[in-house]
Amino acid sequence: MENGKVYMVPMSLGSENFKYYLPEDVLEKIRSIRFFIAENAKTARHYFILLGMRAFLPQITVYEMDKHNKDFDYSVYFDVLKNSHDLGVISEAGCPGVADPGASVALSAHRAGFQVVPLVGPSSILLSVMASGLNGQSFAFNGYLPVKNPERQKAIKKLEDRSKELNQTQVFIETPYRNNTFLETLCNVLNPNTLLTVACDITMPEEFIKTQSVANWKKQKINIDKRPAIFLILKK
Amino acid sequence: MENGKVYMVPMSLGSENFKYYLPEDVLEKIRSIRFFIAENAKTARHYFILLGMRAFLPQITVYEMDKHNKDFDYSVYFDVLKNSHDLGVISEAGCPGVADPGASVALSAHRAGFQVVPLVGPSSILLSVMASGLNGQSFAFNGYLPVKNPERQKAIKKLEDRSKELNQTQVFIETPYRNNTFLETLCNVLNPNTLLTVACDITMPEEFIKTQSVANWKKQKINIDKRPAIFLILKK
Repeated sequence: MENGKVYMVPMSLGSENFKYYLPEDVLEKIRSIRFFIAENAKTARHYFILLGMRAFLPQITVYEMDKHNKDFDYSVYFDVLKNSHDLGVISEAGCPGVADPGASVALSAHRAGFQVVPLVGPSSILLSVMASGLNGQSFAFNGYLPVKNPERQKAIKKLEDRSKELNQTQVFIETPYRNNTFLETLCNVLNPNTLLTVACDITMPEEFIKTQSVANWKKQKINIDKRPAIFLILKK
Repeated sequence: MENGKVYMVPMSLGSENFKYYLPEDVLEKIRSIRFFIAENAKTARHYFILLGMRAFLPQITVYEMDKHNKDFDYSVYFDVLKNSHDLGVISEAGCPGVADPGASVALSAHRAGFQVVPLVGPSSILLSVMASGLNGQSFAFNGYLPVKNPERQKAIKKLEDRSKELNQTQVFIETPYRNNTFLETLCNVLNPNTLLTVACDITMPEEFIKTQSVANWKKQKINIDKRPAIFLILKK
C-alpha cells in the first residue's frame, strides 16, 4: 500500500463563493480527505460545511495545531499516512504554511519522508503583489510589525530602506482593527515619494487595491477599519 | 458607462489540466475577456485554446508587452477600459506581475486610476513556500542569481546569511537547463546544516518537492535537468 500524502489546503479569505478561489479539482480533492490538522478545528468545520462536506463531518477527524510549541513534532499524527489516508493541513485564512503555523506540519512530513502537495488557492500576499504594480521580480513578506513606538516606526523605516537598497517590494500585515491608525503612521513615517499599496478584502465583492505615492495617500481619506488588509511599499 | 477593469490573468505552470489550477469563476471571467496584454502573443493564444476559447480567437486582440522598456507607459492601450471593456494581463507562466514584466502594466493602470483585479491561480513561488515547511511568516523571492562565478557563489552566500539574519526563507529560480549544475553549486557553497527545498514541475503529475539539509542533499542524486524548478533556503 502506498503512503498517503500531506495536502496543504487553502482556506477562504472571507468570501463564501468558493468557485472564485478554489479550482474544481482542488475542491474535489479536499472533499475526499477525512483527516486534517487545522489551526482551529471549529473554523475548519465551518469551512467544510461551506464546501458542501456536511454529510462527511461525522467521518472527519480534525487535530489542532500546537501554536505554543513551534517545534512540535507532528509525526505523532502520521499513522494516518502510513495507513494510506491523506492528511489535509488547513489554516485560519488563505494558504497554510504561509503566514501561519502550518509550516511546521510540512517540515515534520518532509523529515519523516512523506510527500507534501500544495493546492492552488487564494493568498492575499501573492494576489496583492500581482495587483500592486510594484516589483514582483523581488519581494519579501514580513508578517506583522511591532505594535509599539519607537520600534514600530523604526521597523517601517528599516523596511523602506531595504526596499530601496534591494529594489525589493516589502509586504506586511496589520490586525484589522488597527488598520486606520497604521495607515496614518505609514503616511507620517514613509518618504512622500515611496509607492504604497493598500489592499483590502481581497477576493471579496468589496475588494479595494490601490497603489500611489505616500504624498497622494496623505490627500486621500479612506476607511479600512476592521477590513482584512495588506500593505506593500517600494522606495525608488 | 463604467470603466473596464484590468484583470491579472494566471497562466498554466505547464499542466494542461486547468481544472486543477484555475477556479471555475476565474475561468469564466477569462473566457469573457477580448483584450489582452501578453508577454508573448503566441503563447497567450495557445493558452486561450487550451481554455476552450478557440471560437473567440477572431475577436480577441493581444497586445505584446514591451520587455526592453520597463518604464513603458501602457496607458496607450487603456481606451479599451474607457470603452467599458476589460483588459487581461497575461505572462509566460504562472501569475502576471510576479517574476515577469506584467507589473508595469498594473502600475500604469493605477496611475491612470483604473481598477486592477488579481485572479487566483498557480504561482510556483507561493506553492513552493506552502509545501517547503520553511518559514512562511517571513520569506523573500529573489528571482535569478548571477550566472558567473565568483558573483554566483557570493550571491548564494549572501542569501544564506540574510536567511539566518532575518530568519527569512530565501526563494530563487534558475534556467531549467542549468538546474543540475546549480544544485551542485548550492550543495558546495551552502552550510551543510542549511535547509534546502528543491521544487520541480509544480502542479504537474510528476511534481517533486523535497526539503532536507544540504548535507542530505549531497548524499542524494536527483536529475532535475530541464524541469521547471524553484529553490528555497533557510539557515537556522
